[in-house]
Amino acid sequence: MKKEIPAALQECITFHGHLCPGLTIGYLATQIGMRSMKLKRAADEELVCIAMSDGCAVDAIQYLTGCTLGKGNLIFQDYGKMVFLFLRRTKDNFGNGIRIALKGFPQRKTSSRSKSLSKEEAALSMLKIHKERLFTVQRLKKYPIPEQARIFSSRPCASCAEPTMEPRLRVRDGKLLCPECYHDEYSRGW
Amino acid sequence: MKKEIPAALQECITFHGHLCPGLTIGYLATQIGMRSMKLKRAADEELVCIAMSDGCAVDAIQYLTGCTLGKGNLIFQDYGKMVFLFLRRTKDNFGNGIRIALKGFPQRKTSSRSKSLSKEEAALSMLKIHKERLFTVQRLKKYPIPEQARIFSSRPCASCAEPTMEPRLRVRDGKLLCPECYHDEYSRGW
Repeated sequence: MKKEIPAALQECITFHGHLCPGLTIGYLATQIGMRSMKLKRAADEELVCIAMSDGCAVDAIQYLTGCTLGKGNLIFQDYGKMVFLFLRRTKDNFGNGIRIALKGFPQRKTSSRSKSLSKEEAALSMLKIHKERLFTVQRLKKYPIPEQARIFSSRPCASCAEPTMEPRLRVRDGKLLCPECYHDEYSRGW
Repeated sequence: MKKEIPAALQECITFHGHLCPGLTIGYLATQIGMRSMKLKRAADEELVCIAMSDGCAVDAIQYLTGCTLGKGNLIFQDYGKMVFLFLRRTKDNFGNGIRIALKGFPQRKTSSRSKSLSKEEAALSMLKIHKERLFTVQRLKKYPIPEQARIFSSRPCASCAEPTMEPRLRVRDGKLLCPECYHDEYSRGW
């Protein structure tokens, strides 16, 4: 089976931990995005990916594009859709790029005997489908994106003493508390 | 400078895109966690990391532990603290493991001439500090963790036709709409 797997997908599997259809979708979407935009892997935040799913696909995207959770240039928009926007950051918090949307999951049946495919077989079968049958692709111009990730100062929590980023500190009786020690029963849930 | 960099950290740098103090903190915290718990990289969701920061550190954690955004076993708890919980999943959604908290960022000054260090120099200087000076380590038993990531069915949005995960579909005039097409002015913002 290994022979069928392209090297870049094999690297995604090593990062993700296993092969599955979601990872393959991320791999294929990234290929379209990076090739059509002639992108190189992002060393910093020059490239942004907005992912409307936090499923397996985003691991291929993180690995291949350098748009990662830790760098802040992978933005998860919780819309429950296999839609991925690859954007080259311009000034004034806009991006030019491409929107790639999955048309639907291919059926997990073989045509001959209607036998269900395994997760790995289903993933590999997607590699043989023409990309235009899998995805809708749309160019984007001046798409609004969040500003670059900021670094804030930290101050120690008055209770546990652990350094806490200033925007997350809460105040009680004039003391600064981290969210873990604050126990916020009135919070609306950030 | 490359000589000073351990191979595993070098791989984290390749994944993250650059060397910085945050990445080094994630690398060092992961080393403590994985060594003391004798952990192997997670192929699936047997290992869980709860990260109280989404800064650069989580990229080292994702790369080294296999706790990734896409697999759903990296859980971001937005507390603004450099605190990382590494947990081995047990039955009934609990985990046993370790809590690693950064005591504070070391000063970016050299002792001799009070010259500020570069981002890379500051990152490398952290490798020479004894880990006990950098982190507080605490054992955890039966720590509650979220259940494993679920896979939901998708249905096409009645407006854009893009397949959308059922829990994210909204209803208007009896039609199912994805969050992008729903334009929810009354939402409290999920």
